[in-house]
Amino acid sequence: MSADAPVWIDEVFEDRVRYGLRGQILWEETSPFQKITIVDTEHYGRGLLLDDCWMTAERCEVCYHEYLVHPPLTTAASIARVLVIGGGDGGTVREVLRYAEVEQVDLVEIDGRVVELSQEYLGAIGTAWADPRLNVKIGDGIAFVQTAPDASYDVILVDGSDPAGPAAGLFNREFYENCRRVLKPGGVFASQAESPDSFLAVHLEMIETLSAVFAEAKPYYGWVPMYPSGWWSWLYASDTPGQFQKPQSDRLAAIEPQVEIYNRDIHQAAFAQPNFVRRGLSARQG
Amino acid sequence: MSADAPVWIDEVFEDRVRYGLRGQILWEETSPFQKITIVDTEHYGRGLLLDDCWMTAERCEVCYHEYLVHPPLTTAASIARVLVIGGGDGGTVREVLRYAEVEQVDLVEIDGRVVELSQEYLGAIGTAWADPRLNVKIGDGIAFVQTAPDASYDVILVDGSDPAGPAAGLFNREFYENCRRVLKPGGVFASQAESPDSFLAVHLEMIETLSAVFAEAKPYYGWVPMYPSGWWSWLYASDTPGQFQKPQSDRLAAIEPQVEIYNRDIHQAAFAQPNFVRRGLSARQG
Repeated sequence: MSADAPVWIDEVFEDRVRYGLRGQILWEETSPFQKITIVDTEHYGRGLLLDDCWMTAERCEVCYHEYLVHPPLTTAASIARVLVIGGGDGGTVREVLRYAEVEQVDLVEIDGRVVELSQEYLGAIGTAWADPRLNVKIGDGIAFVQTAPDASYDVILVDGSDPAGPAAGLFNREFYENCRRVLKPGGVFASQAESPDSFLAVHLEMIETLSAVFAEAKPYYGWVPMYPSGWWSWLYASDTPGQFQKPQSDRLAAIEPQVEIYNRDIHQAAFAQPNFVRRGLSARQG
Repeated sequence: MSADAPVWIDEVFEDRVRYGLRGQILWEETSPFQKITIVDTEHYGRGLLLDDCWMTAERCEVCYHEYLVHPPLTTAASIARVLVIGGGDGGTVREVLRYAEVEQVDLVEIDGRVVELSQEYLGAIGTAWADPRLNVKIGDGIAFVQTAPDASYDVILVDGSDPAGPAAGLFNREFYENCRRVLKPGGVFASQAESPDSFLAVHLEMIETLSAVFAEAKPYYGWVPMYPSGWWSWLYASDTPGQFQKPQSDRLAAIEPQVEIYNRDIHQAAFAQPNFVRRGLSARQG
């Protein structure tokens, strides 16, 4: 049986920009939440699309997962209990579980089929599914934080898709307020925060909303070549001003040798803000 | 007369990745050096491709030109005389000419048709063609630096395309040695240095070669959404170790309010190296 000929697998952004990888479609289905496509690309290996948007691929995933995980994990007061919302491909929890201090990670993913298909096809990304510290809960992360006890997690990481479809509720103030309530003192919240190039208005609104909920919220920037524009961002929020700039040196020393991108210089560098972001925030506040 | 229907204008990278913008082709010709395409895109406005590779576009050009120009221009001992090799779209010299200290800019572009078509169609990028400090010379930049007098420029900026076609000679040691000879004491050389994601081997080789020619050569990183992977780099080289980290505060204060991205924080941040670059350099030296 011969393999199918490769095709272009494109994400089309606003009908004006497209980013395509050549490869084969290994599986496609529509779950109760979204269209799920598993592909094998020539350039970045096996990958995942949700609703025709690129989510991850084997050789293009550390640039997202390292940035989401390590700035909060190196700086939180404690990292014993970590909550991950979304992240059904398993890359985020893999990075979290690198830390020996982590005792429990709860992964709350709304779409069980994303977890099952990632476990079946994307084992090179999700290498930590068998870690006994990991609990996978299939359910709505928004409802989960509504009912979670006060001060029950050290770190909350939001690894969701764009603010449409099942992830829309991960971008509103009530959700952020629940996350703050659920965090312990010294805790840290982080979320992907869209592209400052492709989604500037959403990006600025997230910064503004999180700044109103937490004592401090800081965007940080990196590269995700398969996402719109490749210029990606995350948001770090905590009730301890300046905490984002103070990674713990024992954690840095343990993590730096294990990862592809993140180190103490990248940590500080990621928080530099382009002028157009600063001006956008000033204009909204003015 | 109705406008043509928009088409996808794609750059295909190694037949495995494509990046496309929807728009109309305004002009296309083959010069003695390359295929030149002028387009009008819905997302980023008017733009230029050379040999079917994206070079620039109106709303996606500061991210390239600011990074090439401002780290060297804020740190060089003097910036009276600047040489730009390539850069026929006019964006680089526009950024250079923001500095009142600049007395003369020589732009040496091999392809006169790129300059003419940019002047005709891309006036929103090249806004400084009429500046009396600018001399445009149509010719080979490699030959130009071979015959240029010793210590005749304060800054040399290489704004060329990939190391194939007319730009290939901009990536070899002899060219860099001539640039060093042509620089005055305290001078700075900078070049675009490809993508660490899409062209890692070329990127590492450039760092290694420039490090052998100058006392210090440092890569720095930013985002160019329309280039392969969006993760772009430049190289800063000088004979004054540590110079790259010391922008002059009067120049910073004059430039920051005028530009979209660059500021003192971005300057320092850009030089943070991902682990895979550090390891790639160590492996080559090992």
